[in-house]
Amino acid sequence: MAPRVRALVFDAYGTLFDPFAVKTRAEELFPGNGAALSQLWRTKQLEYSWLRTLMGRYENFWKLTEDALVFACRALRLSCDEHQRKQLMQVYLTLPAFPEVKPALEKLASLPLSILSNGTPEMLSPLVAANNMTYFFQHIFSVDALQLYKPRPEVYQHAATSLGIHKEAIGFVSSNYWDIAGATSFGFRTYWLNRNSAVADELGVTPAAVFVNLAGLSRALT
Amino acid sequence: MAPRVRALVFDAYGTLFDPFAVKTRAEELFPGNGAALSQLWRTKQLEYSWLRTLMGRYENFWKLTEDALVFACRALRLSCDEHQRKQLMQVYLTLPAFPEVKPALEKLASLPLSILSNGTPEMLSPLVAANNMTYFFQHIFSVDALQLYKPRPEVYQHAATSLGIHKEAIGFVSSNYWDIAGATSFGFRTYWLNRNSAVADELGVTPAAVFVNLAGLSRALT
Repeated sequence: MAPRVRALVFDAYGTLFDPFAVKTRAEELFPGNGAALSQLWRTKQLEYSWLRTLMGRYENFWKLTEDALVFACRALRLSCDEHQRKQLMQVYLTLPAFPEVKPALEKLASLPLSILSNGTPEMLSPLVAANNMTYFFQHIFSVDALQLYKPRPEVYQHAATSLGIHKEAIGFVSSNYWDIAGATSFGFRTYWLNRNSAVADELGVTPAAVFVNLAGLSRALT
Repeated sequence: MAPRVRALVFDAYGTLFDPFAVKTRAEELFPGNGAALSQLWRTKQLEYSWLRTLMGRYENFWKLTEDALVFACRALRLSCDEHQRKQLMQVYLTLPAFPEVKPALEKLASLPLSILSNGTPEMLSPLVAANNMTYFFQHIFSVDALQLYKPRPEVYQHAATSLGIHKEAIGFVSSNYWDIAGATSFGFRTYWLNRNSAVADELGVTPAAVFVNLAGLSRALT
């Protein structure tokens, strides 16, 4: 039997906070292109995090996110000046939590809760604070401490080591299947939040359980 | 001044051989879905190669390509049986070379020419043979020898070490910008074949030169 979960670690973007909230701002700045811009931006943000880790050319997530935005605007032939770029980047610091997140975390708070994210500490602290969620989290772990992005196993190990809890007793929660794959491969007990009825990737690993959102997980664990 | 190029190393898929040739076969098997299937298949094939390398869970390119196909069919809600999957996979062994490739290689053949590809030796040998191009290549390097995918620097180093030529004197040719980024970051002299007027990714590196296809490169080097 699997050991009892003794701590929960959450991914941030897409899991607790909605990165596609940038779509609204993008649509205001570039009418008719908000959806395409926000999607390509997100795709390239992830791609650059993987490629830079593979190449051994780390840049922090703020820089890499801005690089992805520059590419996305160029690829979509949108003329984006520095002021507009700053406006879009700022949205990342105030992304809203998904509506069920706060009530679910309140139910789960008997366990130590932490965040493990690609974002820099300078991105994550204001984001958590803007959502009045600082008091929920014992730790906010950033990959920036290791200069490697998910899904490198060292990143998940960093959280496990800092928590001082055996990895099989740590529940890891993400809406991103590739992140779930990395965390499962490392040895966490994983919960996939499949918010948009996505199809699981064929990466040779399977999460411990799947929920449509965090409310489902909180019901299962409490 | 940059040293004279003493050898050329080519990427295979998308550079010498057209992977979107699977579109025709996919369209025959799944009318109306050929373009979407071949594109998603290719996207996931690359994504899985990066993610598996990051996770330290290598599978060879044949297996990973089949996994990507299974995912793509599932995501597009196409019911693909084993026979259809085999038919699509077989296309990979007979992809046609782009039309200008053979005349261009003939002009470049005063230099030692090699291939460096994610494909397995079992995928690359029949592909090169099917195009009557075996005699062009001194070496066909596969990442399978290292169980790591591009753009990990070890992969490019493997080719440089085997050739016994200093990396700055090796010209590396690819149509995939992320591969060019990895090869440039490693230290090869890189030539990007920008076949489809793509926008260069923001990865902090720049190729030595850009051509629309291999004919342009052969004119520049001979």
